[in-house]
Amino acid sequence: MVAGNISFISYNADSFIEKKAADIEACTQLNASDSVYWLHITGAEQKDILTALAARYQIHPLVVEDILHTRQRPKVESYGTYLYITLRLFKEQQLKLSSQQISFVLKDNLLISVVEQDNAVFDEVKNRLARKQGVIRQKGEDFLLYSLLDAVIDSYFEVLEDFSSEIEVLEERIIGHAVKQHLVQLQHIKRSLILFKKHTVPVRELLSNLDRNEVAFFETENRPYLRDLLDHSFRVNDSVETYRDILTSLMDLYHSMMSNKMNEVMKTLTVISSFFIPLTFIVGVYGMNFDVMPELRWEYGYFLVWGVMVALSMALYITFKKKKWF
Amino acid sequence: MVAGNISFISYNADSFIEKKAADIEACTQLNASDSVYWLHITGAEQKDILTALAARYQIHPLVVEDILHTRQRPKVESYGTYLYITLRLFKEQQLKLSSQQISFVLKDNLLISVVEQDNAVFDEVKNRLARKQGVIRQKGEDFLLYSLLDAVIDSYFEVLEDFSSEIEVLEERIIGHAVKQHLVQLQHIKRSLILFKKHTVPVRELLSNLDRNEVAFFETENRPYLRDLLDHSFRVNDSVETYRDILTSLMDLYHSMMSNKMNEVMKTLTVISSFFIPLTFIVGVYGMNFDVMPELRWEYGYFLVWGVMVALSMALYITFKKKKWF
Amino acid sequence: MVAGNISFISYNADSFIEKKAADIEACTQLNASDSVYWLHITGAEQKDILTALAARYQIHPLVVEDILHTRQRPKVESYGTYLYITLRLFKEQQLKLSSQQISFVLKDNLLISVVEQDNAVFDEVKNRLARKQGVIRQKGEDFLLYSLLDAVIDSYFEVLEDFSSEIEVLEERIIGHAVKQHLVQLQHIKRSLILFKKHTVPVRELLSNLDRNEVAFFETENRPYLRDLLDHSFRVNDSVETYRDILTSLMDLYHSMMSNKMNEVMKTLTVISSFFIPLTFIVGVYGMNFDVMPELRWEYGYFLVWGVMVALSMALYITFKKKKWF
Amino acid sequence: MVAGNISFISYNADSFIEKKAADIEACTQLNASDSVYWLHITGAEQKDILTALAARYQIHPLVVEDILHTRQRPKVESYGTYLYITLRLFKEQQLKLSSQQISFVLKDNLLISVVEQDNAVFDEVKNRLARKQGVIRQKGEDFLLYSLLDAVIDSYFEVLEDFSSEIEVLEERIIGHAVKQHLVQLQHIKRSLILFKKHTVPVRELLSNLDRNEVAFFETENRPYLRDLLDHSFRVNDSVETYRDILTSLMDLYHSMMSNKMNEVMKTLTVISSFFIPLTFIVGVYGMNFDVMPELRWEYGYFLVWGVMVALSMALYITFKKKKWF
Amino acid sequence: MVAGNISFISYNADSFIEKKAADIEACTQLNASDSVYWLHITGAEQKDILTALAARYQIHPLVVEDILHTRQRPKVESYGTYLYITLRLFKEQQLKLSSQQISFVLKDNLLISVVEQDNAVFDEVKNRLARKQGVIRQKGEDFLLYSLLDAVIDSYFEVLEDFSSEIEVLEERIIGHAVKQHLVQLQHIKRSLILFKKHTVPVRELLSNLDRNEVAFFETENRPYLRDLLDHSFRVNDSVETYRDILTSLMDLYHSMMSNKMNEVMKTLTVISSFFIPLTFIVGVYGMNFDVMPELRWEYGYFLVWGVMVALSMALYITFKKKKWF
Repeated sequence: MVAGNISFISYNADSFIEKKAADIEACTQLNASDSVYWLHITGAEQKDILTALAARYQIHPLVVEDILHTRQRPKVESYGTYLYITLRLFKEQQLKLSSQQISFVLKDNLLISVVEQDNAVFDEVKNRLARKQGVIRQKGEDFLLYSLLDAVIDSYFEVLEDFSSEIEVLEERIIGHAVKQHLVQLQHIKRSLILFKKHTVPVRELLSNLDRNEVAFFETENRPYLRDLLDHSFRVNDSVETYRDILTSLMDLYHSMMSNKMNEVMKTLTVISSFFIPLTFIVGVYGMNFDVMPELRWEYGYFLVWGVMVALSMALYITFKKKKWF
Repeated sequence: MVAGNISFISYNADSFIEKKAADIEACTQLNASDSVYWLHITGAEQKDILTALAARYQIHPLVVEDILHTRQRPKVESYGTYLYITLRLFKEQQLKLSSQQISFVLKDNLLISVVEQDNAVFDEVKNRLARKQGVIRQKGEDFLLYSLLDAVIDSYFEVLEDFSSEIEVLEERIIGHAVKQHLVQLQHIKRSLILFKKHTVPVRELLSNLDRNEVAFFETENRPYLRDLLDHSFRVNDSVETYRDILTSLMDLYHSMMSNKMNEVMKTLTVISSFFIPLTFIVGVYGMNFDVMPELRWEYGYFLVWGVMVALSMALYITFKKKKWF
Repeated sequence: MVAGNISFISYNADSFIEKKAADIEACTQLNASDSVYWLHITGAEQKDILTALAARYQIHPLVVEDILHTRQRPKVESYGTYLYITLRLFKEQQLKLSSQQISFVLKDNLLISVVEQDNAVFDEVKNRLARKQGVIRQKGEDFLLYSLLDAVIDSYFEVLEDFSSEIEVLEERIIGHAVKQHLVQLQHIKRSLILFKKHTVPVRELLSNLDRNEVAFFETENRPYLRDLLDHSFRVNDSVETYRDILTSLMDLYHSMMSNKMNEVMKTLTVISSFFIPLTFIVGVYGMNFDVMPELRWEYGYFLVWGVMVALSMALYITFKKKKWF
Repeated sequence: MVAGNISFISYNADSFIEKKAADIEACTQLNASDSVYWLHITGAEQKDILTALAARYQIHPLVVEDILHTRQRPKVESYGTYLYITLRLFKEQQLKLSSQQISFVLKDNLLISVVEQDNAVFDEVKNRLARKQGVIRQKGEDFLLYSLLDAVIDSYFEVLEDFSSEIEVLEERIIGHAVKQHLVQLQHIKRSLILFKKHTVPVRELLSNLDRNEVAFFETENRPYLRDLLDHSFRVNDSVETYRDILTSLMDLYHSMMSNKMNEVMKTLTVISSFFIPLTFIVGVYGMNFDVMPELRWEYGYFLVWGVMVALSMALYITFKKKKWF
Repeated sequence: MVAGNISFISYNADSFIEKKAADIEACTQLNASDSVYWLHITGAEQKDILTALAARYQIHPLVVEDILHTRQRPKVESYGTYLYITLRLFKEQQLKLSSQQISFVLKDNLLISVVEQDNAVFDEVKNRLARKQGVIRQKGEDFLLYSLLDAVIDSYFEVLEDFSSEIEVLEERIIGHAVKQHLVQLQHIKRSLILFKKHTVPVRELLSNLDRNEVAFFETENRPYLRDLLDHSFRVNDSVETYRDILTSLMDLYHSMMSNKMNEVMKTLTVISSFFIPLTFIVGVYGMNFDVMPELRWEYGYFLVWGVMVALSMALYITFKKKKWF
């Protein structure tokens, strides 16, 4: 068991204590009934710690299993005296989307949060707690949960911003000069968005479940905050749908650009061929070696052929001009 | 604090007073219990004014936050003694759609409205109030809200009209002679419509929420007006869906036009090549310099070759005619 | 006010009276409590008449407004003592779909109907009334409304029939020989269908609202007729969806036909080029003027070249035959 | 009235009587209160018989109308003392789907069934009745209806099997060698499936309506059979959706095969042209007749040209090999 | 009747007995009221055994029929004293998905399971029973059912993993170098996924039916396990949808890759043709045999022609470079 990957915070309006603990026991010696306890565990694979926690706080083995197997669908589950909530946190780097699972257990006066890897998403909440910023120190564990969920969903908007700017850049490039590389990028963004959607659509469900059914865990005065969260999750979904539509239309645009280019290429080929293939035939005719070919003997035969060829070219030029091939 | 960007109107059936106020205090000195008060704030970034207002009228900090962060999803929220409503206003200029957030707070006898930038959409309502046109002066603050929402939704129809005419113009041009520029325009209209949809679909929800749940804020006799609004929002949605379908079918049309043109280009190339490539081969044969080539010595060899070539061309002509390539 | 565009009919089991009236007053002098009154107004722009009517029968100003602004979404609205129903009537002429708004107000013993332009859709109902055909003269104003709605929805089926036959004709033509003109026709049918759908989908809603909520206005014994109407509106919707699917698959067919043709064109070009370009090269070789070219001096050189060319052609022929390019 | 197209069957656990009757009167003389009566009419256009029946059994005129107009949407309608059920029966022959309407009226002790044309779908039920096979003779008219509906839905599965095998054959052919004819077949299957879907989706609704609302007409012990039917109708719908998806993906496959072929054709053309067009140019150069062309005088000029041409060809061959064009 | 394909297990916290029985009678002699009985039958076609079982345990004939006809839709049916559950088990081998039906009958103290073919999916549960691993031996027949369903749904995730890795491999290959074979593979994966979806979507329904309606069969303390199962089935559905989206986007990618290649091919053809066709014309001109062709007599004529041709080539090169065709 690596020391220090458990962070234990207890606070009320007056005091704020943070401990990096070596084990669970050390943490839970603190005990004041008027404080809120927040146990934050980094590294979801630590079965021992989680089992010990579960035993101490009467948490169902299925919850521990769900925390350990980090491929859960975002969900909220009520077990009577406590709530289990899980959802995913995303990080986007160079068109590649990685994600980790975050789990919460909300009990009377206690919030346990488990993340797979260390990350800065909760730092701002911790700072607000430490500095007594806003109302958070006056509020209970439900408001803490709200603040953490809010931090997670705000991080979704950052990912969406990344998508948005990537799409915009790609669109400009495609309109400018579409190449195969754009296609691979488009495919990558699409896959990332499909994945992002898979894990964020259930978050909306999760929050509306929370809003509808789990009234007992939230103070009435804090419910507007929950509704605000739900509202944000709707916006995330709207944006995902919007980006999907835009990506589809971008794919269409790419295809159209390609077929436009193909058209241009083919027109070039056709125009050049149409001009020179007939002319080549004509000069071929007078390259024949028949003994009897009267035209070859004419004094102005050669110049006549040039005249015919120029006339033909001009006729073709006018035809193509009319068809708007230039 | 810039003076004059707060407009304060109080009215009843008999009187109508409008003040451009320097600060909130100046505004709210007016106080007659039998009047309706309308506080209209231009510039949603004025945190001081909004905070002052919130303090005076017991408005929840989340509402102030939502007004300040102007990227809210259209929604209605009831806070017991007041309603918070937010939606977006659109302006279309040269295929580019810009939008701003409008927020309303509805309390007993008071309506607060906040817009990001000055615009003419509410002028007509103000004029009706000033000139005592229609029934608006006899009605309460709920009817005022209805009238303002109606003005917003009417402005949606104007945007839709713009879409409609742009699409029509584009369709005609594409049927006439499809070029790459049309594709970029199509893409722009599509994106604008996707955006417009994102912000107007929730308005329907907003209004039906209002109709279903917030009965207390609306006089029974004014409810038909609310229903009328809801009905308009349905029409907006229907139209958006219709335009989406039309844009999709227009994209198909563009593609088909392009592939038609490609077909024509390729047919031209093929027809010309099919005529002249075999002929060029024939004349090439008699351009060879073998010592022994009997045909070259025939008296009518040259004319015979011409005969063969004319016959071949006619055969090809008939073949292509049958295949309907002309 | 143009005389004669108001038709006033009163009937019961025994009597049937029809009047073309100059104004509302003339009409409404008739007054027998045991009759049903049907007021049919042609020309929805007649604000004076409608306002007079609204005043006489306590109809809400919003209803008058809705009748005057003839771009309403099909809907039913209950105003306590009367029902307001509006929907659209279609006429198809040469791939062009035009429509007008029809409005109904149903009160005790009275049905008011307003159409934009004169049309024959209600004539058959009027004839049945005049000739005492069927049960209509024994029934009340609700049955009259049912009969008129039935006439409107039956006219939808006629429009659908037109769509069906147009689509069938187009499909045959496209399978026969697809040309650009078919594409423009397809686009027209699609747009008409999208428009038709926009205005008929809400009719289903309208009727199921009527069936669910407005029990008071319909005699129990007449409710099967309403259910029958609802059933018809479902069929209209099913057909619209079916035609949409068929049009989409027709567009696919068109595209495939085009790409088939392109394929054929390209194969022709490739086959001809593959045969003659190598042959042209060969004859070109022996058209060179080098002093030293041994083959040119051979006695059977010329015939040998022909032999090589025939052999090459046959090899190509077999290759293409194997690839099924013929 | 054609004799014999009315079949009248009465049965109970002990007896089974079948009569081909000339008219309704003859049929209905049989009258034992402990029997189930099944009146099966072939030919839905016989208005006289149906009207007579309706009069005798107090059936609503709308039901008679629905039976006569054989384009109803599958539905169930309860008229208090009896149920009216209508759905469609399909027959597939050589990619062509034809259908007829089947109507049922279920009353106490009596089931009336009306089909448009004679067909074998109900024979097996009749045989089971005659031979006292299974439990059918112990059960009432509701079980008879269940058995007949079961026969109809089983026939749907046969149609689906036909679809399945047609699609499989087509897929293999398209993967083997896609030709235009496959496209027309695909279009036919698609249309048939769209039609089939249109008429079978409402059957699911019909049966779940039956299951939910019309409890009174079904013995409690027979309800598992109804649920079984409902389950089958769900399977029909699942299969239709599955085939739609497969057809769509087959269309994609066809397109891709076509564009693959096009690619191959174009590559052939390009490879041949790329080899021979430059070579033809080279030999053309030495076919020129300038007085001063030093190369022509060189002793090994001709062989040098051949060398250059062979080297060029090999360079091209390596280039194309690298691009994987062979 | 083949001996040994019936496995009979009875267990409680203290004892575990397994018998491979020759017939039903042998099995059911064991009889201790405090044990859970699990009857596992391999080979769903054994009508005799199933009928005997049905008779002994009062199971409805429809259930036996459903077990025998192994093409049921996944479903749960309550028959009062027992539950009938059926779903499908999948096996994927080389892009080919095969499936078999699994049926469960859950009664007081008894679970009957029927599979079509022997397979290892339930072995792990049996081992846990035998070795007294976990809580399974302390729990009742409902927990056994939960464990078996869990094993089935876990096997779905394995199939999904296979899909995932196949898709990933295919995507890399297509981006690398798209060939026709990939298309056939894509089509196979698509069909497998469509099939898999058809049989797994109803499983979600099944489980939520179980959760909602069949409370009586499950101990309250075991319900979290059921909810866990339901949650897994949601994840299966999410993944199927995600893979569908990815396959669609992969198809798009394939098409785009093909059209990119086509573009490249056509550009090669066009560039080569554009360079050499005009040059071939020029050399053709001076291959003509006119008596009077002044240029042929010029001393530097030949070199001048070369100069013109080089200049032309360079002009073309610059043009193509500008168009980014290289």
